[in-house]
Amino acid sequence: MKKIRAAIVGYGNIGKYVLEAIEASPDFECAGIVRRNPDDVPEELRKYTVAESIAKLESVDVAVLATPTRSVETFAKEILASGINTVDSYDIHGGIASLRRSLDAVAKAHNSVAVVSAGWDPGSDSMMRALMEAMVPKGVTYTNFGPGMSMGHTVAVKAIEGVKAALSMTIPLGTGIHRRMVYIEVEDGYDFKEVAAAIKADDYFVHDETHVMQVECVDNLLDMGHGVNMVRKGVSGKTQNQLLEFDMKINNPALTAQILVAAARAGLKQQPGAYTLIEIPVIDMLYGEKESLIKRLV
Amino acid sequence: MKKIRAAIVGYGNIGKYVLEAIEASPDFECAGIVRRNPDDVPEELRKYTVAESIAKLESVDVAVLATPTRSVETFAKEILASGINTVDSYDIHGGIASLRRSLDAVAKAHNSVAVVSAGWDPGSDSMMRALMEAMVPKGVTYTNFGPGMSMGHTVAVKAIEGVKAALSMTIPLGTGIHRRMVYIEVEDGYDFKEVAAAIKADDYFVHDETHVMQVECVDNLLDMGHGVNMVRKGVSGKTQNQLLEFDMKINNPALTAQILVAAARAGLKQQPGAYTLIEIPVIDMLYGEKESLIKRLV
Repeated sequence: MKKIRAAIVGYGNIGKYVLEAIEASPDFECAGIVRRNPDDVPEELRKYTVAESIAKLESVDVAVLATPTRSVETFAKEILASGINTVDSYDIHGGIASLRRSLDAVAKAHNSVAVVSAGWDPGSDSMMRALMEAMVPKGVTYTNFGPGMSMGHTVAVKAIEGVKAALSMTIPLGTGIHRRMVYIEVEDGYDFKEVAAAIKADDYFVHDETHVMQVECVDNLLDMGHGVNMVRKGVSGKTQNQLLEFDMKINNPALTAQILVAAARAGLKQQPGAYTLIEIPVIDMLYGEKESLIKRLV
Repeated sequence: MKKIRAAIVGYGNIGKYVLEAIEASPDFECAGIVRRNPDDVPEELRKYTVAESIAKLESVDVAVLATPTRSVETFAKEILASGINTVDSYDIHGGIASLRRSLDAVAKAHNSVAVVSAGWDPGSDSMMRALMEAMVPKGVTYTNFGPGMSMGHTVAVKAIEGVKAALSMTIPLGTGIHRRMVYIEVEDGYDFKEVAAAIKADDYFVHDETHVMQVECVDNLLDMGHGVNMVRKGVSGKTQNQLLEFDMKINNPALTAQILVAAARAGLKQQPGAYTLIEIPVIDMLYGEKESLIKRLV
């Protein structure tokens, strides 16, 4: 069996877990890792090619983008234009439709496929929301996140003057309402109360119930576990009170990485263009022969 | 907007809920109802054409088969051969792959589309199992049914000598193990204990914990509510203990009917052939414009 050759672009937290997911998938092999400094080669990368550019890697079928969200579009366009598929976990909800449109044009022009926003939210949660709406077309879906670390909110806290280290935890209060628990180390010479007030006044926090706590060591609190509770109550046909609920408790980057790899597999089965996960048959994400998957899962 | 014209084939319990789901869907209209006795026209069907054959209905895009499971193949083949799409909720798990193959050949030869086994299990549960496996490729998924009435087991009890009326409830005990609670009315001249022993010895019940109870009126116990609890614990990449869970509490025929209608919508967007739901992008099941669905759900 010819294996799918996947390159990893960016080797931070997500990239490390993408490598594990590739190594654990029987139909994949790692075509190499692209990073800014190709001389930075930790132990687990010694057996792979580490390069500054994807052009230096051999016969890549798909590039898994494990870069910061804001650089996804630039990387994806360049790689798609060279005829190589991409997958990303771009996670700014308001920008997904426009990213998809922009990558769709490049992919179609160069006979490649982009799967966009293929993490867990957006990503598998999006598939869940769509499936719940197909089952129960009228009603409200609440997506409740946590308890878990919010990357975006943590970055926002770190940008505030006087913050030395930070962690922002998202706590679900139900019906899509969240509490923010913020743990910080304060820089010498700053007053905790003033820093806390600045955090609470920040756009990221001003609309939520926010608690700021000073701790000696933020690092001791870090845990990559996360969770989702998604609830939909509504109407099928003319029948009220249909109740659906999805729950997960997961290692955050490990799940993101696994879905990226499943999406990379699915991308190779699509026509040129850009897709979100809700536009892709779920069977295409799975390893195995079609009829045996149908027999086992349907 | 041209509406999708759907015919309902069979007008029992599911058929009635399919009509409600069609009436509640803004993009559908009912092209008529096919039933053995077209003179049996209850109040709610007065405004529709009721006919003995689908050929007597006007410009049908898709036939929703609400017939008994065992007659699905015969009806579907005939209708697909006339160039009309079909959807069904065929529910014998061991027969799905072969039904799909058989309908795939007819559909491809006549430029039509069949969506097979598009109820909730098989159906939406199958999509859920596939999605869970894409997220967490290694591990075990348990599908726990109930509490709710099992149609198959109830029919099996009714076939036993001395049973006048019956209800078999499925009670989930976790890890895919189920208890059967059987309520029966006994025919005059039969001994309850002997009838109960015969039920427990039946193939449908012999492997499960089964309790048989005599009641005066089975009809007073009937409720079409049902439930599913699906659990998967496993590995994403090399990370253990990823925990996923799906729960629903629903009106059984109402959900089946709604998914049939969503599958009918999706069928019109596929190439000729036969599909299970895991082979269809979930977005195709939804009413609405593609880009606005992506903006709202992804």
